[in-house]
Amino acid sequence: MSKLSGKSIIGFSRSDSDEVFTKAVNPATGENLEPQYFSASSDEVTKAVDLAEKAFPVYSNLPAAKRAEFLRKIAELIEEAGDAIAERGVQESGLPEARMRGETGRTTGQLRMFAALIEEGSWVDARIEKANPDREPLPKPDLRSMKRPLGPVVVFCASNFPLAFSVAGGDTASALASGCPVLVKAHHSHPGVAEIVGNCVDQAARDTGMPEGVFSLLFGGGRTIGVSMVEAPAVQAVGFTGSRSGGTALMKAAAGRQQPIPVYAEMSAVNPVVLLPEALKERGEAIAEGMLTSLTMGVGQFCTNPGLIFVPSDADPAFKQKLASLVAEAAGACMLNAGIAKAFKESTAAIAAIDGVETVATAKDAGDNCGSPAVFSVSVEKFLNNSDLEAEMFGPATLIVEGTVEEIEEAVSGLEGQLVGTVHGTEAEIKNYTSLVKALEGRCGRLVFNGFPTGVDVCHAMVHGGPFPATSDGRSSSVGTMAIDRFCRPVAWQAFPESQLPEELHNSNPLKIWRLVDGERSRDAL
Amino acid sequence: MSKLSGKSIIGFSRSDSDEVFTKAVNPATGENLEPQYFSASSDEVTKAVDLAEKAFPVYSNLPAAKRAEFLRKIAELIEEAGDAIAERGVQESGLPEARMRGETGRTTGQLRMFAALIEEGSWVDARIEKANPDREPLPKPDLRSMKRPLGPVVVFCASNFPLAFSVAGGDTASALASGCPVLVKAHHSHPGVAEIVGNCVDQAARDTGMPEGVFSLLFGGGRTIGVSMVEAPAVQAVGFTGSRSGGTALMKAAAGRQQPIPVYAEMSAVNPVVLLPEALKERGEAIAEGMLTSLTMGVGQFCTNPGLIFVPSDADPAFKQKLASLVAEAAGACMLNAGIAKAFKESTAAIAAIDGVETVATAKDAGDNCGSPAVFSVSVEKFLNNSDLEAEMFGPATLIVEGTVEEIEEAVSGLEGQLVGTVHGTEAEIKNYTSLVKALEGRCGRLVFNGFPTGVDVCHAMVHGGPFPATSDGRSSSVGTMAIDRFCRPVAWQAFPESQLPEELHNSNPLKIWRLVDGERSRDAL
Repeated sequence: MSKLSGKSIIGFSRSDSDEVFTKAVNPATGENLEPQYFSASSDEVTKAVDLAEKAFPVYSNLPAAKRAEFLRKIAELIEEAGDAIAERGVQESGLPEARMRGETGRTTGQLRMFAALIEEGSWVDARIEKANPDREPLPKPDLRSMKRPLGPVVVFCASNFPLAFSVAGGDTASALASGCPVLVKAHHSHPGVAEIVGNCVDQAARDTGMPEGVFSLLFGGGRTIGVSMVEAPAVQAVGFTGSRSGGTALMKAAAGRQQPIPVYAEMSAVNPVVLLPEALKERGEAIAEGMLTSLTMGVGQFCTNPGLIFVPSDADPAFKQKLASLVAEAAGACMLNAGIAKAFKESTAAIAAIDGVETVATAKDAGDNCGSPAVFSVSVEKFLNNSDLEAEMFGPATLIVEGTVEEIEEAVSGLEGQLVGTVHGTEAEIKNYTSLVKALEGRCGRLVFNGFPTGVDVCHAMVHGGPFPATSDGRSSSVGTMAIDRFCRPVAWQAFPESQLPEELHNSNPLKIWRLVDGERSRDAL
Repeated sequence: MSKLSGKSIIGFSRSDSDEVFTKAVNPATGENLEPQYFSASSDEVTKAVDLAEKAFPVYSNLPAAKRAEFLRKIAELIEEAGDAIAERGVQESGLPEARMRGETGRTTGQLRMFAALIEEGSWVDARIEKANPDREPLPKPDLRSMKRPLGPVVVFCASNFPLAFSVAGGDTASALASGCPVLVKAHHSHPGVAEIVGNCVDQAARDTGMPEGVFSLLFGGGRTIGVSMVEAPAVQAVGFTGSRSGGTALMKAAAGRQQPIPVYAEMSAVNPVVLLPEALKERGEAIAEGMLTSLTMGVGQFCTNPGLIFVPSDADPAFKQKLASLVAEAAGACMLNAGIAKAFKESTAAIAAIDGVETVATAKDAGDNCGSPAVFSVSVEKFLNNSDLEAEMFGPATLIVEGTVEEIEEAVSGLEGQLVGTVHGTEAEIKNYTSLVKALEGRCGRLVFNGFPTGVDVCHAMVHGGPFPATSDGRSSSVGTMAIDRFCRPVAWQAFPESQLPEELHNSNPLKIWRLVDGERSRDAL
């Protein structure tokens, strides 16, 4: 691996700004990591946006096979950089090497999944209605439609996924797949991993003949660089994974533009888990063991972390007892950065201090920058009367809420939007809780039965989204192939000559994609 | 037909508010039309929203066949009320009876189209990924996803489509089809037609056993009743067709809620037409004749009206001459209401007064509340330097913009978002203008070749949308089957027992819909 430069990637150039931004910090040791990173200048932000705007008509009209080649090349170069990513990633995130390797595999898998999706091609939702000049009262025109990319997209790297939701993560992969150039804002916690991956994307763009500006990577502050990118008129959409305050600030900036643009912000969730009586009786301790694993995975720093557990108050106590003993014996671990560790301590202290909250168990404090698992409990009655109890504790902590099943259904119905809702029950008993399951469906993007909310499979059927404030736009998913739809809009062509139509809409169906022809799904030529 | 009451429909009840709202005015005569309409009280708005919220879990979980029955019944009752609608519609809109009859047919056609769409069922985009416990490094869970309705939707009636974009128009039909209850805010211009159609929807809901609250119709002011409906926490989406100021006010209200919600506002457009040299040479006069028809259809009161015509300055002058003579001889006609007629006169006067604008031709003033066709012209150079020239003149007026083809491409690239872009050219010459066509594509939801922008076919492939400010959300269409997607979000179920899954996701595929199973499209059972 070549030496890190600390400089933003502006199209095919490197920044020459000397404005100091940050050095990464190893959260496990507190030591600064070289090199110095510099903020992109405002002229450089403008230049990156201009290059993206110029790249858009070229890039968006390339054959899908060319874009797929680009995505696969990125994946290949990231794999080649695997050792460097693992080494730097562990230093920057405090996460173990196995996690870095696993997340690298997930990232390259996502890039290849989108490459395959656009090579196959049916995702564009091509629709053809043939002309009928004899229709009464009016002749029917030939109409053909499909999804087309929106334009340059700004992607914000996530603190908790240095790879899978960062420079070449799901937002970038899906936007590039759709035909949108991408401008990435790096996260201050892991600039080194960002630069390594940014170099891979940059090299892949050159190697596969992509237009300059299809990708830029900018270092600098979110409130300055980040907001100015979102406000740039040429930018047409935003992808973000992070805090509720960060996401809502971007929503506000995007809505306040002369031309408002969509923001896909995945923000915060407590991911309610409902435990039903028969399941608790049958396997309360086993559920507690699974819950501990889910709760402490990645030091609880997943947006799908189970932060709220509803338990019927007259249920078998084995679950709660077991979870308490497991948590008491669990070990704290290094969190992603000092700010997250501090916020975790503050948020658990705030929950613990609320009237009616009992601290069921806490693990021993493992020291600076560490997050120690904790379990609290409260009655549904108290929960319903204090919305602060619904606040996310970003880290390995959860709140058990106890009450009657009727009270639990009421509480679930009143929750804010969530990414995941989980139910543990027997197949027999769940039939008695249909209205509770429906209430949960109303609040969540994904429902899990007899499992745990962490672990987000990357596939066609995944929905990683959910009503506000889980995300800014519950109509979308940021994981899986559905994510590509976020960066597109439908366009229709009426009575157009084939020479001016995308190949997907040609009579001969040269790409052999599935199309809706006069209302019937078909892969045939017309 | 039963006598009009002047009262809002709140679930299955009628308003008892005595707060005076408006009487309709016949724009052709200026006379007031009975009865007096009353504003819903704020308690009644709250009650209507509460009923919709309670109806949602019931209505959204009905089999699609039941919702289809409801939609078909609405269509049937509207047809039975056809004479009453035609009579009152002509009085309220100043439009001819044939238009009222035609729009009624379009409206019932839309309702039946959505009924057929949900009966067929594949629109839900069902996706199934089968479990694979042996997958490495992690087992693959069973995941199934499909679109589910958002919740109660507020629909604002349009001034210019008393039927097709009003009480039981496209927004209502698509929202009801998806499973969302609908709260309609009537337009002050045609409360009588609103009440007649509202009675049909209400009766259909009772006849087909729908839950109370699936539909309400409210009379009252947009700034009070309308905004309070948008701000009600239970409301989850908004459909609107109207002015830019009205639409952006709703966007602001929706974005400012504690939970921001999507607004689908179709607002304003000038729908650029580009005339290429060979087409002008071959058939300039014929294009002028078609343009006059498109320009004056419905007294120019269509959102797809051709308000901007780009003509190469060295082209054959026959088009411009012919259009001038046709417009000079054309007749003005009654507009929808006094406010629209006044705004039309003001907007044409404002364009005519801009430096460099030439008044090419105007029809004779036809009197109060009438819109008289008019054509103006200006150079591209002036056009590029004054964004006021891009303002919509809502009515039968258009602006010819003359310059070189290069200048025209520059002007098209810089336009605001549009519903429709049109090109006239020969099939031979258009091959030389690919970048111009692509520039137009970037600004429009629909492109028309050798036709005219008015006339929006209701079908699967239609896109009636476009980048802001044509609509608030260019990722959507308000016409055709695509419109249903606006009111849905995807939901995934992981490892769920079949008893708790929608039928669309059952192994046996009882509805025989198209599904994406492990990435392959199929109608088979698993």
